[in-house]
Amino acid sequence: MLQQLTVRTSAGECLIDITGEVERAVRAANVAEGTALLYVPHTTCGITIQENADPGVQHDMIMVLRRIYPRKDPAYRHIEDNSASHLQASTMGFSHFVFVSGGRLVLGRWQAIYLAEFDGPRTRTVLVKVLRD
Amino acid sequence: MLQQLTVRTSAGECLIDITGEVERAVRAANVAEGTALLYVPHTTCGITIQENADPGVQHDMIMVLRRIYPRKDPAYRHIEDNSASHLQASTMGFSHFVFVSGGRLVLGRWQAIYLAEFDGPRTRTVLVKVLRD
Amino acid sequence: MLQQLTVRTSAGECLIDITGEVERAVRAANVAEGTALLYVPHTTCGITIQENADPGVQHDMIMVLRRIYPRKDPAYRHIEDNSASHLQASTMGFSHFVFVSGGRLVLGRWQAIYLAEFDGPRTRTVLVKVLRD
Repeated sequence: MLQQLTVRTSAGECLIDITGEVERAVRAANVAEGTALLYVPHTTCGITIQENADPGVQHDMIMVLRRIYPRKDPAYRHIEDNSASHLQASTMGFSHFVFVSGGRLVLGRWQAIYLAEFDGPRTRTVLVKVLRD
Repeated sequence: MLQQLTVRTSAGECLIDITGEVERAVRAANVAEGTALLYVPHTTCGITIQENADPGVQHDMIMVLRRIYPRKDPAYRHIEDNSASHLQASTMGFSHFVFVSGGRLVLGRWQAIYLAEFDGPRTRTVLVKVLRD
Repeated sequence: MLQQLTVRTSAGECLIDITGEVERAVRAANVAEGTALLYVPHTTCGITIQENADPGVQHDMIMVLRRIYPRKDPAYRHIEDNSASHLQASTMGFSHFVFVSGGRLVLGRWQAIYLAEFDGPRTRTVLVKVLRD
């Protein structure tokens, strides 16, 4: 019931479109009407849903998140160098869902599902469970 | 099973209380004990839950979100003028749930459900599905 | 079906590890394979999932959230002194889920579930419902 996707991220901070992988998991679950639950078992990457038409959106989101959550700060106490990554991931969130109808994800016209990486590049896991109505 | 609410937003950035519409959807679903799943199929508006007692809260939230996610920035690459809207929407989130008991939403004393508009005014859609326990 | 956890927070802003309490609720629900839904019926505290290995992470997250969402601002209209708390809570979110397998929470290696308090110290409530697959 619980499917596991493996996602290879390509940079320190980036948004990786995983819509195709999630759609495959929905097909494998063989659920026509239901809800796809998505979960990231990490603390420095999250999930978000965003526009996939213009890659400028992803660039700008990463740029602003980097600015407001600074990577370095003399007052940081965390022994690793990634407090910003933790906060950016918590801001995006770890558990999200998308409805399924007719065996397909019910996404808006401009929506795609992204793994939001903030401490990469790494190999990440996304867990997917599809609830049947 | 999947109900669609239509919400007309009134400004560029605003929080629109949709609690009444969601309650109507719960009644239409005729579920006494369950969970209402809420989803926004957009990329520049989200959903949040907040206080509905003092409208000052909504004013202040919009004000601070506007300040930390600036509308204009020379480094923005997105061809439209709304990278801030995308980031503000991702911060609030697109998928949320509220429990249902006795046929009613189980909201806290001060909680209301808001569509969080960041690129309005527009006509927006909220999808609602009520899972039965 | 709906369980209620009571959490005593210890400071104005803090992250309280509630993983043990949520695990107890999962055991009480007697669900082997399913999904634990978590909901906070408040407007100035939220839930997040984060690292529990180094307390420096929690310190740094609170520090940065306090800086970007200032407690005082001459332009604030909210009659109480906690607009920042509302915004910090909305950023973390009020509804989250974690999968359950073999009767246990499916958390990542470094993940713990936190109540994110932004207007404490107070006694807070977390609602838990465990869906069976």
